[in-house]
Amino acid sequence: MDVGALKAKAAAFRKLHDGPDLLVLPNAWDVASARIFEDAGFPAIATTSAGIAYAHGYPDQERISRPEMARAVQRIAASLRVPLTADMESGYGDVAETVRAAIDAGAVGMNLEDATRDAAKPLFDLEVQVERIRAARAASDAAGVRLVINARTDVFLAAVGPEEGRMDDAIRRANAYRDAGADCLFVPGVADAARIAALAKAIRGPLNILAGPGVPSAPELRKLGVARLSVGSGAMRAVLGLTRRIAQELRGPGTYGAVLEGAVSYAEMNQLLSRPHA
Amino acid sequence: MDVGALKAKAAAFRKLHDGPDLLVLPNAWDVASARIFEDAGFPAIATTSAGIAYAHGYPDQERISRPEMARAVQRIAASLRVPLTADMESGYGDVAETVRAAIDAGAVGMNLEDATRDAAKPLFDLEVQVERIRAARAASDAAGVRLVINARTDVFLAAVGPEEGRMDDAIRRANAYRDAGADCLFVPGVADAARIAALAKAIRGPLNILAGPGVPSAPELRKLGVARLSVGSGAMRAVLGLTRRIAQELRGPGTYGAVLEGAVSYAEMNQLLSRPHA
Repeated sequence: MDVGALKAKAAAFRKLHDGPDLLVLPNAWDVASARIFEDAGFPAIATTSAGIAYAHGYPDQERISRPEMARAVQRIAASLRVPLTADMESGYGDVAETVRAAIDAGAVGMNLEDATRDAAKPLFDLEVQVERIRAARAASDAAGVRLVINARTDVFLAAVGPEEGRMDDAIRRANAYRDAGADCLFVPGVADAARIAALAKAIRGPLNILAGPGVPSAPELRKLGVARLSVGSGAMRAVLGLTRRIAQELRGPGTYGAVLEGAVSYAEMNQLLSRPHA
Repeated sequence: MDVGALKAKAAAFRKLHDGPDLLVLPNAWDVASARIFEDAGFPAIATTSAGIAYAHGYPDQERISRPEMARAVQRIAASLRVPLTADMESGYGDVAETVRAAIDAGAVGMNLEDATRDAAKPLFDLEVQVERIRAARAASDAAGVRLVINARTDVFLAAVGPEEGRMDDAIRRANAYRDAGADCLFVPGVADAARIAALAKAIRGPLNILAGPGVPSAPELRKLGVARLSVGSGAMRAVLGLTRRIAQELRGPGTYGAVLEGAVSYAEMNQLLSRPHA
């Protein structure tokens, strides 16, 4: 894809964070799911690193290689008209290289986590993560595409430090990430409405919340000041739950209820995927 | 994978066609679905060409390239302990080359259709298809792995010729394919119990039926003399139906019922995919 078109797409995607509506991003794991989501009317699509990893046979958390992840992102981006933002986990080591890989793949946004994958020290020090975000911003600007950087802090998700200190820690990190050049701040692992409202108030930039059990609905999140909502690996794991129920029905009574009920028809899927790629 | 191990796997898979139980093969489209199916206890797994094509952004019917299809099969085969049989459609032109690609990918079985993808002449002439099956058999034997060839006739699926002649045509083709070296005969597009019983009786080899609306249950098919059952792209299309319902719920009320209900947990998926690959 040419840089001019990507640049325009990145700008359009950035603008969606400031619109009147909550930006709801469904997370795709392959081209079929991405096209189903686009067809349903979402103005932009995200990927799920876990979903893409599972589809390729890996557990989540950077066990899939950067090139294999980038290739999957590229396939999805090439099939979509709407902007795609890529979940590139903690940046696969060299953050600048990962930014270039995401842009080359046709993504106009990227998630970047502060998780280390090291149980002894679950998060990068704030200063280190700030440097990593600066490096991502610089690599994106050098490539000529102003990638929408969604800086994620795993303070809550990884339950880092004493419970009573996590709000302050998350807010301090999010604001430092914003100052370092992040466009959006992602704080997964929070469900409580009051806590979400407090985060939205204290964080000086668009706040991204992760859907999950007990999380307020999209319209409620909007009222709490949230800018962006994603479902992470939720949709992929729901689909794998149905796959398991199909398996159990086939192995058990040997009937096809779960296979047939609510399936998209063969003709419709072929039609949906017949549009030429970008 | 070494040829010796593949040879043994092919022999074990062939034997499953002659056992006391109906061989029920769920059709996977990526590693995650294949591992869910294996984990559910199926003794062997099949791929769905349509599902793999959709996941990669193509409609079905050989629009995905042979190398891309083979790479997807390879990923799935490498993740499984049980035998995998690959749906290689009509053989992507050069049938011998496709057989080698399937074996190189680690498959021990292969579907080969007699459909031409040409609306003016939907099926290869019987003699041509017999030659193609002979070529597949020879390529498999030359590679040192006796691939389980599942020869599919699309007489019913493509509604070829006058209705009253289709039973005879399908039986004539299936028996000729068996004589040419096919191990199993696949006649999709048939749901009527009496017709299935007549096919099982007249065809001199294991009969594969495709699950679908109105098709008798697995135990009933066994009583009718069927050896093997597959679901084709059914499971993948069911999963895409759920993906669409998730999308509609997120876009509509903005709630997460379909995302959360019956999902496999993040921890469980990571655990399932943590087993080292072959």
